[in-house]
Amino acid sequence: MPLRLAASDSDFETRFTALVEARRETDTDIARDVAAIIADVRARGDDAVAEYTEKFDGFSLNETTWSVDREERTSALDRLDKDLRDALELAAGRIRTFHEKQRPQDSQTIDAAGVRMGSRWSAVETAGLYVPGGRAAYPSSLLMNAIPALVAGVEHIVMVTPTPGGEINPLILAAAEIAGVGEIYRIGGAQAVAALAFGTDTVPSADVIVGPGNAWVAEAKRQLYGTVGIDMVAGPSEIVVIADRDNDPDWIAADLLSQAEHDPTSQSILFTDCVEFADAVDRAVETQLAMLTTEETAQTSWANNGAIICVDTLDDALPLSDRLAPEHLELAVADPDALFLRVRHAGSVFLGRLTPEAIGDYVGGPNHVLPTGRRARFSSGLSVLDFMKRTSFLRCDEQSLEAIGPAAVRLAEAEGLPAHARSVAMRLPRREPENRSD
Amino acid sequence: MPLRLAASDSDFETRFTALVEARRETDTDIARDVAAIIADVRARGDDAVAEYTEKFDGFSLNETTWSVDREERTSALDRLDKDLRDALELAAGRIRTFHEKQRPQDSQTIDAAGVRMGSRWSAVETAGLYVPGGRAAYPSSLLMNAIPALVAGVEHIVMVTPTPGGEINPLILAAAEIAGVGEIYRIGGAQAVAALAFGTDTVPSADVIVGPGNAWVAEAKRQLYGTVGIDMVAGPSEIVVIADRDNDPDWIAADLLSQAEHDPTSQSILFTDCVEFADAVDRAVETQLAMLTTEETAQTSWANNGAIICVDTLDDALPLSDRLAPEHLELAVADPDALFLRVRHAGSVFLGRLTPEAIGDYVGGPNHVLPTGRRARFSSGLSVLDFMKRTSFLRCDEQSLEAIGPAAVRLAEAEGLPAHARSVAMRLPRREPENRSD
Repeated sequence: MPLRLAASDSDFETRFTALVEARRETDTDIARDVAAIIADVRARGDDAVAEYTEKFDGFSLNETTWSVDREERTSALDRLDKDLRDALELAAGRIRTFHEKQRPQDSQTIDAAGVRMGSRWSAVETAGLYVPGGRAAYPSSLLMNAIPALVAGVEHIVMVTPTPGGEINPLILAAAEIAGVGEIYRIGGAQAVAALAFGTDTVPSADVIVGPGNAWVAEAKRQLYGTVGIDMVAGPSEIVVIADRDNDPDWIAADLLSQAEHDPTSQSILFTDCVEFADAVDRAVETQLAMLTTEETAQTSWANNGAIICVDTLDDALPLSDRLAPEHLELAVADPDALFLRVRHAGSVFLGRLTPEAIGDYVGGPNHVLPTGRRARFSSGLSVLDFMKRTSFLRCDEQSLEAIGPAAVRLAEAEGLPAHARSVAMRLPRREPENRSD
Repeated sequence: MPLRLAASDSDFETRFTALVEARRETDTDIARDVAAIIADVRARGDDAVAEYTEKFDGFSLNETTWSVDREERTSALDRLDKDLRDALELAAGRIRTFHEKQRPQDSQTIDAAGVRMGSRWSAVETAGLYVPGGRAAYPSSLLMNAIPALVAGVEHIVMVTPTPGGEINPLILAAAEIAGVGEIYRIGGAQAVAALAFGTDTVPSADVIVGPGNAWVAEAKRQLYGTVGIDMVAGPSEIVVIADRDNDPDWIAADLLSQAEHDPTSQSILFTDCVEFADAVDRAVETQLAMLTTEETAQTSWANNGAIICVDTLDDALPLSDRLAPEHLELAVADPDALFLRVRHAGSVFLGRLTPEAIGDYVGGPNHVLPTGRRARFSSGLSVLDFMKRTSFLRCDEQSLEAIGPAAVRLAEAEGLPAHARSVAMRLPRREPENRSD
């Protein structure tokens, strides 16, 4: 049974706060093991990676097995069902078009003092793309992670994926072909992340590492943040649906279940202003659960983390949703734009009754890699900017240095940094370099 | 003596690689202590913060001492020397103007299929600003950290700074007044960062924590990354100067020393195409060192980490500089724009002989909080974007859902996510919800 709350309950604030603060992440104490793997890969490179791959994946790396060869990739694409290939290509095209609009513009100005300044963007050289093995290997995620890098202008996209027993999902290979991934290595886990961060004789070093993974992969990325850029610290997926009584309860139930079926730790929350509608959705969820091949996962998620919250008016749901800062927010109402104007914290918003969140998972265009666990308060979905960096620049001439230089000298003196002051003062006209000892 | 290399040396590649890979960060093993402080502050809030403040700062927190009152702040500003106040206000105004141009634009499009989508930016609610106590408390850094937050539209800027014995630098208070910081708490170290991350009864929780600090502060920010946003993982400061023989060796020596005087771990590197000029700069550094109140620090930095590298042509310096990906890069040549076009990795670039890096530290306009330790390969200086986040949105109507929905259904089926497929399929016309068990 999902949690059931009503804003009119006397203990609502206490119970809603508990919901906001509940940590769904499992506190796995793997930090030390991950640190040891990282140190080992840093020190011993390929040999360490091969040993961990043998140990964890039961896969033997040698000259011919490290990477997936081109023939294997193109044949996976060739053998793909036509309708599936069309769907992947539609998705890839739409994702590309949306992300092309994210390319940042360089800027330059000359101000009143005559100082020229601005910013110039450039792509990182190499992006590392982690793709999980097994069940959670989603071709849609591969597209969502690889395409922004390509649009950013990244030259090398290096993919890693574990292949226990040598098995690799042909759908993943096909998606990698469609996305334009350069190289694919058959490695996974913390050892693959470390190999990408430092580079080995075989694996090129990456500047940024993105992509979903298990707890080991996530912890390795967290520990290596700063050595490389990473996409984000990701937790379990979540959705908030704000729906009035005019929705079909079946549609809303399906939306809640589409989140719940991802993982037992996923969370689906419905806000509605109608108790009868809440009941109807609750029943529809139970009915639909039995129809799903993912029933067990969805059932666990819904029972442990699901919630149905009744509010007096849907407007009341907005500040509550902001406190949850959900990854996904559906506004299933007649005039979603009016509500959306008042939304402050959410990763991605789905407007109206005809925009189920799953559209955004695959073919909408915006990225489906989004901040979870209330991180939408301060972070954004994956974008082209995650694969680029900005270099600022400044140029003074004699007049402009004379206009702003003395203030720099004064501040450097006040901060007790005489070489800073000298480096400016020496260049100022009619002002001798000072030998200050104050 | 600084390192002296020439590109023509037979062992140049080996020695330059060693320079690129040298870690100047001290490997302090404080991670466990910091983790314990964070856990304690999370569990016990104010009490824990007060105990650590008593222990580390010798300062007793009580109702009247937790925060700096308004009167103390305005009087610090009132008592400031007029020329210093003018310099701070000039700096603040120029920083504000530059950062106002960084405000991102929302976007929205309706594509050929009729799907409406776009992105909307919003500010985080609360920014935490760490300001170190003692010698490294720079009013310029306070401006560089606080002003982008204010320009982003952050409502609450909460500053923390340790005040051993109750002492607080009046210049810092004045700068906080000029920048418009909301509240100032007399706490520091890992305990202050943890208080900002989780919030306590006294200290509001922040969404993003920025600002320089010692190793404990840096480690606390690193550990709390993900719970909150942080500015960056910062290391020792560094400069690369590319200069031809037509420069005044004294000017270039002063620029190298302005970096060296920051900290013994700072690094200053000169590339030049002229051995005689290299010698002249080397001598000028020695002469100027003796004139500095910061001689000891600058001498240690220059001797341990400084380098003078002779190249055949200045063009040869560019790929070498890119490998260093320096925080600051000076192009002290007649036509710096031509060289700048070929620069790929640098935090901030100073163009021409009349733009010493120190101008950018204080009054240029671009931010002086920049990626160090080769992180300019993948990250950027502090900006308004660090205090904002992007919410994407999507809206389908009947026609557009019919156009792209079937592809989403097909992909969801291929990924084994039936509730995803159902949530879309149910909304498609003339298509029954399918109960797939494939």
